[in-house]
Amino acid sequence: MFVLVNLKAYPCDPVEIAEAARDVAEESGARIAVAPQAAHLSAVAATGVETWAQHVSPNGHGSHTGSTLAEAAADAGAEGTLLNHSERRVTLAAIDDSLAAADRADLETIVCANNPRQAGAAAALGPDAVAVEPPALIGGDVSVASADPAVVEESVAAVTAVDRDVDLFCGAGVSTGDDVAAAADLGATGVLLASGVAKADDPRAVLRDLVSPL
Amino acid sequence: MFVLVNLKAYPCDPVEIAEAARDVAEESGARIAVAPQAAHLSAVAATGVETWAQHVSPNGHGSHTGSTLAEAAADAGAEGTLLNHSERRVTLAAIDDSLAAADRADLETIVCANNPRQAGAAAALGPDAVAVEPPALIGGDVSVASADPAVVEESVAAVTAVDRDVDLFCGAGVSTGDDVAAAADLGATGVLLASGVAKADDPRAVLRDLVSPL
Amino acid sequence: MFVLVNLKAYPCDPVEIAEAARDVAEESGARIAVAPQAAHLSAVAATGVETWAQHVSPNGHGSHTGSTLAEAAADAGAEGTLLNHSERRVTLAAIDDSLAAADRADLETIVCANNPRQAGAAAALGPDAVAVEPPALIGGDVSVASADPAVVEESVAAVTAVDRDVDLFCGAGVSTGDDVAAAADLGATGVLLASGVAKADDPRAVLRDLVSPL
Amino acid sequence: MFVLVNLKAYPCDPVEIAEAARDVAEESGARIAVAPQAAHLSAVAATGVETWAQHVSPNGHGSHTGSTLAEAAADAGAEGTLLNHSERRVTLAAIDDSLAAADRADLETIVCANNPRQAGAAAALGPDAVAVEPPALIGGDVSVASADPAVVEESVAAVTAVDRDVDLFCGAGVSTGDDVAAAADLGATGVLLASGVAKADDPRAVLRDLVSPL
Repeated sequence: MFVLVNLKAYPCDPVEIAEAARDVAEESGARIAVAPQAAHLSAVAATGVETWAQHVSPNGHGSHTGSTLAEAAADAGAEGTLLNHSERRVTLAAIDDSLAAADRADLETIVCANNPRQAGAAAALGPDAVAVEPPALIGGDVSVASADPAVVEESVAAVTAVDRDVDLFCGAGVSTGDDVAAAADLGATGVLLASGVAKADDPRAVLRDLVSPL
Repeated sequence: MFVLVNLKAYPCDPVEIAEAARDVAEESGARIAVAPQAAHLSAVAATGVETWAQHVSPNGHGSHTGSTLAEAAADAGAEGTLLNHSERRVTLAAIDDSLAAADRADLETIVCANNPRQAGAAAALGPDAVAVEPPALIGGDVSVASADPAVVEESVAAVTAVDRDVDLFCGAGVSTGDDVAAAADLGATGVLLASGVAKADDPRAVLRDLVSPL
Repeated sequence: MFVLVNLKAYPCDPVEIAEAARDVAEESGARIAVAPQAAHLSAVAATGVETWAQHVSPNGHGSHTGSTLAEAAADAGAEGTLLNHSERRVTLAAIDDSLAAADRADLETIVCANNPRQAGAAAALGPDAVAVEPPALIGGDVSVASADPAVVEESVAAVTAVDRDVDLFCGAGVSTGDDVAAAADLGATGVLLASGVAKADDPRAVLRDLVSPL
Repeated sequence: MFVLVNLKAYPCDPVEIAEAARDVAEESGARIAVAPQAAHLSAVAATGVETWAQHVSPNGHGSHTGSTLAEAAADAGAEGTLLNHSERRVTLAAIDDSLAAADRADLETIVCANNPRQAGAAAALGPDAVAVEPPALIGGDVSVASADPAVVEESVAAVTAVDRDVDLFCGAGVSTGDDVAAAADLGATGVLLASGVAKADDPRAVLRDLVSPL
């Protein structure tokens, strides 16, 4: 299982969470990555934690003011990127072009989707993984794997039917080791989470609990 | 073969072209539809031609100013709608929601895509058809079926691999009966065209030529 | 005072409301217009009521699939258009270009804004009127003129400081003749309303009440 | 005069240009700033040069994946931000909200505009400066101050008429000290440039020439 912690624009200390994630990854052997603001990528990567971007733009080098260039994210230490998060939806053509941009910059990719149908569509574009996150459950207290296990199972099936090499992650409401274990039981090979860690009083303790079943 | 004439925002007379399309469809038995501006839907539909929208919004009824409600398009006489045209790209989630909106309004659907990969992704969302239109060829003088036959064949394969019930159309540079025949030979079951008819001196003659091989 | 009824994407009968608005305008001498879906423009205009678009695109004639061409709205009977409604925000450059498009099509223009600062900015682009609608009050039960009279007065001042020829309208929560009178007292020369009429059991009675103080 | 070098997504070494800008600013006493990719902000700021963001998002802290948080840009060393660049247009409401976000993060602000009318509108939102850049001249060989001096003079007038405290910058085609001098003569207090420095064989020499008239 891969645990990806999306810091969004939360008022947290990205370096403190990065250090906690690095330490818990080392002590547990679990794979944990942190996705901060683009402006915080280099500070987070300097901790030694696996660092991801929250988004990259579809464009390559050129006249693109205010874009998030995949190569710049990689320069700053990113090893992967989310794409098409429900808070940063882009067009189908932009997902396709952003995957190409990420590939040029040697970034791993996770494309987000709302439901199994969209998960299958995203898989057809050839990312490393697709993450299904039902919008109604994002930011909530109940994990997707408990609240709607069918959406995870159907997404695994939809993605696998299109491309066996694409992994399926799930997200929304994930905050405990039990949630991670339930996701794994449903066929997910990773989880996305955000507020469960970023808003926690003790992110390190939450991360230890998250990876405890692994 | 289905011939869909997209009038875009061209300075043509939509009713004159609609009457020509209706007459040529009747005399030839070919299926021809016309997609005008939303504000022209009822005038075009009143000619008796098969009428399509160029776009509908993902929303249903509600507080959505300036949207193109699928139900309103249907009220005005539309029987189908294009979605995600390269001049009106929308998010993956919006394509999915717009297909649901079209379904509620009993509209047929064609989702546009740039390449075989995107065509496969679009097919996973369950439209009636996917139309592949390489952006570099749109508005040009050479038909996609001549300039890049592989993109049509690979799109047929990509769509069929995902869902055998989804048709594949092609577009870009289509303007003659030979182009339509070439598209059919490559496995397409319809063509999208625009300037070839909308900017023609004699749209009726162009339409007659287009359907001559059918 | 000008009363503009925005039908949004509400599940109402646009022709029934248009007929009521036409009749109440005639019997009262008040200026009342109705803004339906683009696909309903011609049906609404056929009633004889003053008809407005909810939005037009910044482009002119050309290759613009799924756009709302100002000339097509005018063809269908529109005499004016809203721009930049809070449910259809566009870029500053697009407001500017859409005003030029509306001008070419002889459409009157009202640019929407959230607050006095944005109202002043909109006025600098030279529309016929600016409408201030605080987002928090849209769709609510309390009129902007009661809930936040300062926002109307400050918007009148901001608009007038930039261009004395630009009118100031207000909207959000307007549903009664008292609301219209209060708006006029604050310096507004028109009101935007939507659900107050579109969702009313008896739109004709609501419209009569709305114009009763005029 | 303030010289702001926008590195866009150009394939340049941002630190090398930042060091050159820092040195030329120090030796000449001119104010020069560099605006890199968000992911490069901290590396650029570490050189000691005045550092700007190319864009910040309208949101504050919260659930906003893939946004460019003003506070994060400031953390990374940004002292100001461009907004609404022609390659990153945002809605009128977003410019307004982004100015508030920049203000919370103590960032200076320059709002870009295409023409004098938009420059006046932008000034009404209360930025520190407005930059007028005619789209047709961006990336070209002729400076706006030579190619279209009236657009600069009329923008100064439009901005001043709305708010005397807002500065007017100009951009598009600026690459020499003569261009900077011409801009100053027309009433501009700063220039934006990009390819003239970012694509130069010797950025340091270009910067020296740029500030030579100051």
